[in-house]
Amino acid sequence: MLEKKNFNMTTDEFRHHGRAVIDWIADYYDTIESFPVLSQVQPNEIRSSLPAEPPHQGEKFENILKDVDSLLPGITHWQSPNFFAYFPANTSGPSILAELLSAGLGVQGMLWSTSPACTELETHVLDWLVNMLGLPEKFKSTGKGGGVIQDSASSAVLCALLAAREQSTNYESNEKGCDQHLVVYASTQTHSSIEKAVKIVGLGKQNLRLIQVDEDFALRPDKLLLQIKKDRQDGLIPCFVVATVGTTSSNAIDPLSEIGNICREENLWLHVDSAMSGTAALCPEYRYLNAGLDLADSYCFNPHKWMLTNFDCDCFYVANRAILNKTLKVLPEYLRNKATESGDVIDYSDWEIPLGRRFRSLKLWFVIRYYGIEGLQQHIRHHIKMAQDFAGWIDDSEHFELANLAPLNLVCFKHLGGDSFNQHLLERLNQSGHLFLTHTILNGQYVLRFCVGQTHTEERHVKQAWLHIQETAAKLENILQE
Amino acid sequence: MLEKKNFNMTTDEFRHHGRAVIDWIADYYDTIESFPVLSQVQPNEIRSSLPAEPPHQGEKFENILKDVDSLLPGITHWQSPNFFAYFPANTSGPSILAELLSAGLGVQGMLWSTSPACTELETHVLDWLVNMLGLPEKFKSTGKGGGVIQDSASSAVLCALLAAREQSTNYESNEKGCDQHLVVYASTQTHSSIEKAVKIVGLGKQNLRLIQVDEDFALRPDKLLLQIKKDRQDGLIPCFVVATVGTTSSNAIDPLSEIGNICREENLWLHVDSAMSGTAALCPEYRYLNAGLDLADSYCFNPHKWMLTNFDCDCFYVANRAILNKTLKVLPEYLRNKATESGDVIDYSDWEIPLGRRFRSLKLWFVIRYYGIEGLQQHIRHHIKMAQDFAGWIDDSEHFELANLAPLNLVCFKHLGGDSFNQHLLERLNQSGHLFLTHTILNGQYVLRFCVGQTHTEERHVKQAWLHIQETAAKLENILQE
Repeated sequence: MLEKKNFNMTTDEFRHHGRAVIDWIADYYDTIESFPVLSQVQPNEIRSSLPAEPPHQGEKFENILKDVDSLLPGITHWQSPNFFAYFPANTSGPSILAELLSAGLGVQGMLWSTSPACTELETHVLDWLVNMLGLPEKFKSTGKGGGVIQDSASSAVLCALLAAREQSTNYESNEKGCDQHLVVYASTQTHSSIEKAVKIVGLGKQNLRLIQVDEDFALRPDKLLLQIKKDRQDGLIPCFVVATVGTTSSNAIDPLSEIGNICREENLWLHVDSAMSGTAALCPEYRYLNAGLDLADSYCFNPHKWMLTNFDCDCFYVANRAILNKTLKVLPEYLRNKATESGDVIDYSDWEIPLGRRFRSLKLWFVIRYYGIEGLQQHIRHHIKMAQDFAGWIDDSEHFELANLAPLNLVCFKHLGGDSFNQHLLERLNQSGHLFLTHTILNGQYVLRFCVGQTHTEERHVKQAWLHIQETAAKLENILQE
Repeated sequence: MLEKKNFNMTTDEFRHHGRAVIDWIADYYDTIESFPVLSQVQPNEIRSSLPAEPPHQGEKFENILKDVDSLLPGITHWQSPNFFAYFPANTSGPSILAELLSAGLGVQGMLWSTSPACTELETHVLDWLVNMLGLPEKFKSTGKGGGVIQDSASSAVLCALLAAREQSTNYESNEKGCDQHLVVYASTQTHSSIEKAVKIVGLGKQNLRLIQVDEDFALRPDKLLLQIKKDRQDGLIPCFVVATVGTTSSNAIDPLSEIGNICREENLWLHVDSAMSGTAALCPEYRYLNAGLDLADSYCFNPHKWMLTNFDCDCFYVANRAILNKTLKVLPEYLRNKATESGDVIDYSDWEIPLGRRFRSLKLWFVIRYYGIEGLQQHIRHHIKMAQDFAGWIDDSEHFELANLAPLNLVCFKHLGGDSFNQHLLERLNQSGHLFLTHTILNGQYVLRFCVGQTHTEERHVKQAWLHIQETAAKLENILQE
């Protein structure tokens, strides 16, 4: 069907070039350990190598593909098994190929009717995940709740906050403007997206309360309750709490049951952000992390972090989808259709900020079926085992000490040489190209974060990393002593 | 490197399965005209065919891929050359393959340092597009402005409105809550995303003024100015205007110069939404549509609609990036890095709602280079020519009449039989499976929309569509006369 008119690629050419791209990716993974994990380029280095003007006439596909090689020095290799920075954004063969299929189908799933399979597969797979993770039944679409794929946990918490804002103001903020008596609560360790969301929805940072944490960096429910009562006394309206299962800095686990009980008693919306650590609940032995989740109004976790599914894929659940839909629904005439009016279908544009959406559930469907529950569990257990081994080596070392509880796959640690030493150590490690890790500040001290979650990370990578860390620290000690 | 541990797909398996997926997509495009364009399934039909539970053990990739066929009845074929509904979301071979590469690289571009090439290629290609479309120089990153890829025009206008909100309140809304004296203006024909954005940012729908349009559905500047003056008299703060080049209902073109002059004199932020029609400016003969754009503060158009680039890809430009960045920047400790602190780099998470982001500029880079400026121009001219032919046939017909000016590739028309007749006509056409078009309401009347913008649409598809429309209308006339 693809005729060589209008310069389009024919299907025969697509088969040919497609194979070349598939091979390019396979070659990339075959050689990925040969690249510096953190890109070593200087600002503008990549850009200045690009032609100043776009071509007037089309170029050969072969030449365009070849030029991807010239971008490689500017790539930080998130899929390298030596990537231990931030939280991972891992992916896998079946996910990459499902993303390809989604691009090929080129479906836009804003309404059920604009591609029913796009909506129904998403609803179905997100219900699957409720069972797979042992989440509360109320998050299933078969009851009053349901799940939707968002691009990120940032967008998920924004949608949750909007729904809470509307519910607590009898849906009047949408009409009359944000009620600025509403107050939002999270711990001092909460993700930066909470502050962003509070600003976006028109509440203002002054209505965000960052609640003190305990010695393990988990939100203190007693302090939360005190602050809620104080705000109420001040004539404000406590509205929304974000609890985190696995904070970004240190993987701290906020106590959901206690927080949830406060939210029920005080009538606040509880959103639980488990972007990274939520995937651990695939394994029954880690479901204790979610104890109390039945008290939450909304929940999210990111298969695009730790569940072998490429970015973007955040699974966002609500216990009552009607509140979310009433908050976000805007139905202009040109989108009206019989299925929507019947009320029998889900239109996912009522569940999110953008109107349009890709067919993102395909990759979840592929990943879950390809690995099976057992395969995914084995990945999680393997990553946690490797991180725990690493934590043990830190604990046994005379030169380093642990800086967090390290309940799962994130180990925070520091060399005993102090903040400046640790900063230099991190810089040297990342400049080596052998591995990439990042830092945070805990209790006012500069600490290193080591997160094991890359799809292809094996014991040897973690052992090599530990050797590099020790050797680099020893060299740095020598330099400083000279 | 991909060893068969942890159930991962080896690179050899990836090569093998990757070819199968490439062939699946090529076969799909070879046979795409054999499918009903609009899916004919009933609600829950696809879902009820799926297994109730996910598998415990992994399945063979071959079987998973085979099951994609079972989804096809639930697909509405946006890439069919007989798709004339909504606005298109077209794509192309080079775009699909670039999306595959992006998935394979699996890069997360939240900061410059998390993959410099991801940021620099985006900045560069968006600067290219300023030249390619003849946009004002101020939107280039080499000055004070710059472009960024958003998921959709909905997110673009949300970001623009947030920046305008902060600028007009001296950046205090972020801190103290949205100033509810601010007022937003757009025409009655504006996209639904404007209402959504006004609600999200905490202004409330009551502060959105939908300004009357002229007989061609374009915003009336005189009415805009009157409303601004009235609001100021009422103690409100006129803040933000959205002008549309190519409205969704009827492709109306708001008069940018007059609106822009009002915005300059009255000190309002002007955002121009040209999601669909912006691509036409690739051809110099259509740049008149953008006359006055130099008066705008921000602009967006969607290559994922009409520029052969698959969803999601909205290009969003601002004249002053510092305002946008100051509005959206939240930098927690764990994201701090030397490049950011140097101020020499762009961190695109300061330009958008989510923190994380994919490597989306790759597909723009591939599309522009593969087609060249000439190839892209030829597509646009071809689509417009076919739409104009269609408009001519409508105009010549005794049974139908045009309902919009049809300046580009969207023709609104109606059968003279009245609203109910046109509703039935649309229903029968879409149920036939031969083509898919949608409707809107203009001047209180139900009209059909016929948009030519699919990558593979040729004259024969448009001619067939017109035959189907005439035949179906004739049959319907007969039935009603009986």
